[in-house]
Amino acid sequence: MTKRLYHGAAYYPELWDEEVIEQDIKLMKEAGINVVRMGEFAWSSIEKEEGHIDVSFFVEIINRLYHHGIETIFCTPTATPPIWLSYQHPERMYVDNEGRVMGHGSRQHVCTNNPYFREKASIITDQLATQLGNLDGVIGWQIDNEFKCHVGECMCNTCKTLWHQWLEHRYQTIEQLNNAWGTHIWSQYYHSFEQIPQPGATPFLHNSSLQTMYQLFSYEKIAEFSDEQASIIRKHSTAPITHNGGTFFHVNNERLYESLDFASFDTYADYKNYSAYLFNCDLWRNFKSSRNYWVMETSTSYSASLESYAIPHPNDYLKAEAVASYALGGEGFCYWLWRQQRTGCEQPHGSVISAWGKPTIGFENVKKVEKARKEIEDSIITTTPMQAEIAITYSDNARAFMKTEPHQNLNYRNLIIDFYKNILQLGYHRDLIPEGATLKGYKVLFTPFIPYLSDEYLAKAEAFAKNGGIWIVGPLTGGRTEHHTIHTNAALGKLDELAGVETLYSYPFDGTGSVGEFKGVKAPLSLWSSLFHPIDAKVMGTLTEGISIGMAFITERNIGNGKIVMLGSFPTGDEGELLLKTIINHYANEQGVTVKAQVTEGTIIVPRQGNGYLLWVIVNMDGKGGKVQLPYNGTNVLTEKTVEKGEHFINGYDYQIVKFGQD
Amino acid sequence: MTKRLYHGAAYYPELWDEEVIEQDIKLMKEAGINVVRMGEFAWSSIEKEEGHIDVSFFVEIINRLYHHGIETIFCTPTATPPIWLSYQHPERMYVDNEGRVMGHGSRQHVCTNNPYFREKASIITDQLATQLGNLDGVIGWQIDNEFKCHVGECMCNTCKTLWHQWLEHRYQTIEQLNNAWGTHIWSQYYHSFEQIPQPGATPFLHNSSLQTMYQLFSYEKIAEFSDEQASIIRKHSTAPITHNGGTFFHVNNERLYESLDFASFDTYADYKNYSAYLFNCDLWRNFKSSRNYWVMETSTSYSASLESYAIPHPNDYLKAEAVASYALGGEGFCYWLWRQQRTGCEQPHGSVISAWGKPTIGFENVKKVEKARKEIEDSIITTTPMQAEIAITYSDNARAFMKTEPHQNLNYRNLIIDFYKNILQLGYHRDLIPEGATLKGYKVLFTPFIPYLSDEYLAKAEAFAKNGGIWIVGPLTGGRTEHHTIHTNAALGKLDELAGVETLYSYPFDGTGSVGEFKGVKAPLSLWSSLFHPIDAKVMGTLTEGISIGMAFITERNIGNGKIVMLGSFPTGDEGELLLKTIINHYANEQGVTVKAQVTEGTIIVPRQGNGYLLWVIVNMDGKGGKVQLPYNGTNVLTEKTVEKGEHFINGYDYQIVKFGQD
Amino acid sequence: MTKRLYHGAAYYPELWDEEVIEQDIKLMKEAGINVVRMGEFAWSSIEKEEGHIDVSFFVEIINRLYHHGIETIFCTPTATPPIWLSYQHPERMYVDNEGRVMGHGSRQHVCTNNPYFREKASIITDQLATQLGNLDGVIGWQIDNEFKCHVGECMCNTCKTLWHQWLEHRYQTIEQLNNAWGTHIWSQYYHSFEQIPQPGATPFLHNSSLQTMYQLFSYEKIAEFSDEQASIIRKHSTAPITHNGGTFFHVNNERLYESLDFASFDTYADYKNYSAYLFNCDLWRNFKSSRNYWVMETSTSYSASLESYAIPHPNDYLKAEAVASYALGGEGFCYWLWRQQRTGCEQPHGSVISAWGKPTIGFENVKKVEKARKEIEDSIITTTPMQAEIAITYSDNARAFMKTEPHQNLNYRNLIIDFYKNILQLGYHRDLIPEGATLKGYKVLFTPFIPYLSDEYLAKAEAFAKNGGIWIVGPLTGGRTEHHTIHTNAALGKLDELAGVETLYSYPFDGTGSVGEFKGVKAPLSLWSSLFHPIDAKVMGTLTEGISIGMAFITERNIGNGKIVMLGSFPTGDEGELLLKTIINHYANEQGVTVKAQVTEGTIIVPRQGNGYLLWVIVNMDGKGGKVQLPYNGTNVLTEKTVEKGEHFINGYDYQIVKFGQD
Repeated sequence: MTKRLYHGAAYYPELWDEEVIEQDIKLMKEAGINVVRMGEFAWSSIEKEEGHIDVSFFVEIINRLYHHGIETIFCTPTATPPIWLSYQHPERMYVDNEGRVMGHGSRQHVCTNNPYFREKASIITDQLATQLGNLDGVIGWQIDNEFKCHVGECMCNTCKTLWHQWLEHRYQTIEQLNNAWGTHIWSQYYHSFEQIPQPGATPFLHNSSLQTMYQLFSYEKIAEFSDEQASIIRKHSTAPITHNGGTFFHVNNERLYESLDFASFDTYADYKNYSAYLFNCDLWRNFKSSRNYWVMETSTSYSASLESYAIPHPNDYLKAEAVASYALGGEGFCYWLWRQQRTGCEQPHGSVISAWGKPTIGFENVKKVEKARKEIEDSIITTTPMQAEIAITYSDNARAFMKTEPHQNLNYRNLIIDFYKNILQLGYHRDLIPEGATLKGYKVLFTPFIPYLSDEYLAKAEAFAKNGGIWIVGPLTGGRTEHHTIHTNAALGKLDELAGVETLYSYPFDGTGSVGEFKGVKAPLSLWSSLFHPIDAKVMGTLTEGISIGMAFITERNIGNGKIVMLGSFPTGDEGELLLKTIINHYANEQGVTVKAQVTEGTIIVPRQGNGYLLWVIVNMDGKGGKVQLPYNGTNVLTEKTVEKGEHFINGYDYQIVKFGQD
Repeated sequence: MTKRLYHGAAYYPELWDEEVIEQDIKLMKEAGINVVRMGEFAWSSIEKEEGHIDVSFFVEIINRLYHHGIETIFCTPTATPPIWLSYQHPERMYVDNEGRVMGHGSRQHVCTNNPYFREKASIITDQLATQLGNLDGVIGWQIDNEFKCHVGECMCNTCKTLWHQWLEHRYQTIEQLNNAWGTHIWSQYYHSFEQIPQPGATPFLHNSSLQTMYQLFSYEKIAEFSDEQASIIRKHSTAPITHNGGTFFHVNNERLYESLDFASFDTYADYKNYSAYLFNCDLWRNFKSSRNYWVMETSTSYSASLESYAIPHPNDYLKAEAVASYALGGEGFCYWLWRQQRTGCEQPHGSVISAWGKPTIGFENVKKVEKARKEIEDSIITTTPMQAEIAITYSDNARAFMKTEPHQNLNYRNLIIDFYKNILQLGYHRDLIPEGATLKGYKVLFTPFIPYLSDEYLAKAEAFAKNGGIWIVGPLTGGRTEHHTIHTNAALGKLDELAGVETLYSYPFDGTGSVGEFKGVKAPLSLWSSLFHPIDAKVMGTLTEGISIGMAFITERNIGNGKIVMLGSFPTGDEGELLLKTIINHYANEQGVTVKAQVTEGTIIVPRQGNGYLLWVIVNMDGKGGKVQLPYNGTNVLTEKTVEKGEHFINGYDYQIVKFGQD
Repeated sequence: MTKRLYHGAAYYPELWDEEVIEQDIKLMKEAGINVVRMGEFAWSSIEKEEGHIDVSFFVEIINRLYHHGIETIFCTPTATPPIWLSYQHPERMYVDNEGRVMGHGSRQHVCTNNPYFREKASIITDQLATQLGNLDGVIGWQIDNEFKCHVGECMCNTCKTLWHQWLEHRYQTIEQLNNAWGTHIWSQYYHSFEQIPQPGATPFLHNSSLQTMYQLFSYEKIAEFSDEQASIIRKHSTAPITHNGGTFFHVNNERLYESLDFASFDTYADYKNYSAYLFNCDLWRNFKSSRNYWVMETSTSYSASLESYAIPHPNDYLKAEAVASYALGGEGFCYWLWRQQRTGCEQPHGSVISAWGKPTIGFENVKKVEKARKEIEDSIITTTPMQAEIAITYSDNARAFMKTEPHQNLNYRNLIIDFYKNILQLGYHRDLIPEGATLKGYKVLFTPFIPYLSDEYLAKAEAFAKNGGIWIVGPLTGGRTEHHTIHTNAALGKLDELAGVETLYSYPFDGTGSVGEFKGVKAPLSLWSSLFHPIDAKVMGTLTEGISIGMAFITERNIGNGKIVMLGSFPTGDEGELLLKTIINHYANEQGVTVKAQVTEGTIIVPRQGNGYLLWVIVNMDGKGGKVQLPYNGTNVLTEKTVEKGEHFINGYDYQIVKFGQD
């Protein structure tokens, strides 16, 4: 349980003089900032000359801030290696898939697998941990910054060697790799691991196995760097460690957080896209269930760089974001950045304070966040988010598979957010959970858009169903093996048997005019789809138009005390949304899902469990206000007035906390 | 005359185990497959280690298939050189025009002009021809696979040297090249052939002569490789040789087929674009008139790769395609591919059988093809396609010129198909003929979109007109010399004189509001256009709007017993189509063209000549059904019932054969 | 004052034989060509073998043309170095920002900073100046041709060294650079000038200072090359020197013309975009106020290359262009090109004469220009354009800043032309002036879209206001320092104080629904905007909608006898245009601006001052005709008839000259 709610900002005191720092601290207190994040780009300030590490500046700042009630999350500064590491060392630099060797002057320019970089990174992190790790002000660590946000898989020679080693470790012998990848196709056949190329320029596409494995290799290597850094810190500091991830970056977040202590994310979603914001909260809460997550970066109003800018938030939206995150399990809500950059390439980015030390358009909204934080802090720290009954599996591995095989420019992130939105809009409390997460406590599990399902996952999901859960599988799930090849025993491999079906045809529905029906609701179907012949299953949805009329696209199989439901296609358009919602409600009702609220779209309810009571945190996210059906009489915690069961209103971007007692 | 109709599929037994092969043969017989194509990507299977060639696997497979009534077209496997040829040999690899050296793992990655590759290719082809060339099952050969489908002109150093030699051969002295290319422009002037660059990176465009000549050089070199391979096969085998070409690939199909025995093509046109499919049939029939052509690859339902997929065919469309092709002179109709790929990058591609050995969405349609094939086989093999009276010249050289000079993103292939469509829709039987083809037997010749007309072509077309033909020239025809420069004697060189005109202005009509009129039909005119002053010609079409009102864009000159008609502009939009059709009908009528049918759009008639009778193969291609005016009473060959002269109906994607006797 | 009006064409006699040249001269006389421009691409003709310079061909041509009344502007031929300079010398070639080394065969392929190139360029220019500089026919020189039209900043190693020197010269010490650029950000910090990269490949954006400085460095270097060439010419010739610039090219035109004698530009604006054409006239007139400018290149009908073409001009539009330019201060009006290219890559480009020696579609229009030139010549050469009362500052430095920081794909050129159009359409006579120009004589000064205002400019503009001018600043002006960083004392640096405001918020209005009001006119506001708190200023415009309702976006401060007006945002759409025009009229009226005409959109009035009288040159530019209010009775100079005060009509693309006497 959280002890306090943090309200913070990224801070770069190394870029400013003493006078400015004085002013900053004064303004932070006015704005209600109680934590800063520092250091992630400061390598050249700390180690200006190679080998001369001096952290005294940050020791002083951390202590000074702490004295003013502002705590610190300190970062390892490895996202921006200094010029002495990069100058005249092209072999240390990141190489993109066009073979371009990166130069100095931006960030993530050095290959994180380069041994010289790793040595230097270890040394500076060791020094930072030693000298800062036990300061009172330091409440946490961040490893590096947004791993792989600007770069993908590196194609340098160091990576080539590691790739060969990684493959050898995975496949043991070259023959096993050749078999797994089916390299007799197109005479790709390799005689040794050394011969296997990185996925650079070719006249047409690379083998899917090679493409996906290179991504998984890259996922693993960046996580190993993170592991290494974390273990160095732990030698000297007990403060918990995080990394600020995101669903855009080329990492496997689940794997990354394995060796970290808490999860945090950066988000710059447009205010109209508040579902994506909530998606992050519901996902990051579940990467490390042992500790509350942080919103490590978000803009006070708009993100921007030299080359573009986002739409500024409407007034009060920031407050709604903060309250929603705190309610959904966020311990910290932090801005990027405190003071507008004077130089570099992100000067236009929104901030709390301008480069000339005055409030920005975001400042008043930051103060509203602080007001809200104070109002809700007690309610939040004395309760915890309720266990959701509906889970959706999120997989960065699936993202890699879909990057290799994007069908028609598909993007895993957009697909799963679209899917998630339906559950959100229906008012269900929900968890987005990583592949390895426990399924305990859930009543319904959704597994959409995951091309490869591991044996472990299948076993877990089967057990979940046998124990009374309903597992809804698809669309686009299960059709690929671990090597990103096609199953040869059945269209969906073991899943066919588990689901009690034979998957017959599997083909793209786009352009075929396919329409599907479930419980009397019809909708156009889209994307690559599967049609099922029930073996030990019941047909629940069939095609009424298209080139396979009458065939099943939804089936269910009773298994143990639960069910496995196959969803073979993706309903599309407004009717498709209705059809998806019909499916969701149908199975949620069947399972007696109760952790849900009847609420208008644009408003969310976060149910939190107190000691013998229930809290509903109600937040309007779309600025239009909304209404919710209160299931019981309760108390408005903020006004201390009674609120009655039944229809209840909330204003645009407003929040309320209702307590339902002893219940 | 064809002896039988082939129904086939591309087959990759080297990728599967014995059990699967057994299953395949059983299913092939069920589906009616009587021929397979094998080997084009099997180099690493046949010569796993350099120098150790073992074809026993394929000997066994060919014999086994033959035993089951399935014959074989075997391919040289040179499209995918093995890793021992490519590893650590960047100098052997294809280099694109950005200077990127291709890596292993896809196909067409090695430069086909590399001498080491050529040596190894010769050896393996010699071995294949020796060991397979006289097997009973082998009825034909395919050289390589889709030459230059993924790559264009190679920029490697081998090619640079060959380019200089090719130029020296073409131009003899550097001064002649300098004069021909006009290299004093922009101080391009070269002192020796060695100095002439490949068309790589420059701040602005390369000289048109250089760009076009590099394409023609590349055309010639790939054809020489094909010649070389064919001559090796012929030493050991009498089976006829083909290559599976296409109008997208960077080859000169006419030149390529010179040293081959029969023509074949691959097509994956969308079902809505059936005109492009028929275009291919009408063109490939004429690349080798001595033998029937093959559809060597088409999908059973949809093409796809990791990165995209096409729309699946409606049911029954495949049957319409097959019948249309057999009727138009196709001997074989083959799928790519038999069994869905398990690995690689084309797993999603449609097939006959899935990777797990079950029917795909295409399977039932394949069976319908087989049913149709059996029904029509007798009628087809006892007749031949009638000689068309209308010919349209097709030129891959023109495609090269237009790639160098695309005006506003023009694409030769799209332009000529658009033009062709008008003739098709009017119900005329027609031939698309290569530049070198004889004009004997034709009454009307169209020559649109060919920037450079050779002296041979001009002489042939002039003779054609003098002998009573009508030659309709343009639009976009004749304005460039053989060196891709501008004529200096007249806008269209010798053509001006031949056509009895002085071509006055030549400029782009787009955006000028130009409207032209011919025989009372008016339409907007587009593209780069020419306006004519009649010297010894009659004005047939004039501009009624634009910046050159009153000037002629259509003229005709009587010459001998025929005419030369100049068409100076391209009518556009629906009115443009009407205007073009008016022109076509006008001159076809004038010539008494009779090999034509009155038929609704979407349905085609293929007239075939029997011994003393005429067959009409009627096929509906658009799924909407159609009607046709039968000119005489006849017999429905399939039902053996009489059909009466006059309006006659056909259902969607259906086919009928009507016999008109003794006539 | 101009002595005569020139009517010319670019001429390439080196590409043609004697017979063609004879024909050309005859046709030039028919077309009224009295000047040709020659030589800019002729290096290989003059110095075919390295070191063997022979200019006799051009001496003969110049003399022959002069004998026929045709004068010459001769060019240094450095835009296209010969093969002997480029072959096997990659180190001399231009390198783009992808690292691609340019090859021979196009133009601008050699780095103009390469010392060997510079040596050879000096030698040939010296020889040309010596041998041609005193020929009677030579009336002027052009340095090179369209500097940097196809290339941007070069990334070669020569440039890298010069870049380091340039930086050292600018910043003196590396610490001053580090401070100015704020390189502690992202650990960019440099220990020596040698370490500073060129702006090549990086994972994300380069530092804005580095990006902008590299552009300014490139601006300076190309200007130095021009200076050097000009000084060589001046040793041997007194003929005035120009360069044909443009607002698309990567040069600082103001800096470039410093050491040249007259300004000239090339334009190929579409006829619908006649405002861009007039923009050029109003701008180039002011680059060298000491001499009249030239239109050095324009098409007779349409520009084109192998890859695209423009829309041909309507008939008579060319005449309107020519008259407008002569009236606005143009001495020469020249075509590119005389005779259509036979070879190269610009064969399709419009010309006066075709490659086969016949009139093109442009020819009749050229003759109309000549007719007009003769008609107006006396009126023009006895008068001068009136001093405008409204000035708009144009800055190629601003263009560089905006290339570094394009916000949402902003383009300086488009923005300023959009702004200019409003002033044009209101009928004001106006000057576009470079940053360094005097402000003497103006009543209203606009400074939109200039991110960085120099101290010199600020001082000059302040003095202008104090002396009674109204200085209207913004939008997007003043927010960046000379190093392309953010001010730290105030949002707009010194400008805040000068304008009597505190600039509060500064953020992008796009998407926020912001609406502004000025004098009762409301319009949506767009782009990055500033909001002002008046300190010593009056609020003139406020936000009525958006997220900062009630705040000021227009203020004015009285200063001395004038005013400084801040315009913090860009009104957009039709309402935005109305709002901008309201602002322009408001302040023009306040200043008593009288050099203006009441004229319908599409028609322009050019007021010219004679000795004791005023001329109005009226030109219709949109082909629709128009009307103008004559302020007095006058005389139509061309018809010698009286015209009465009041409403007066002009036909499409027509021109008239009205004289208002003794007034």
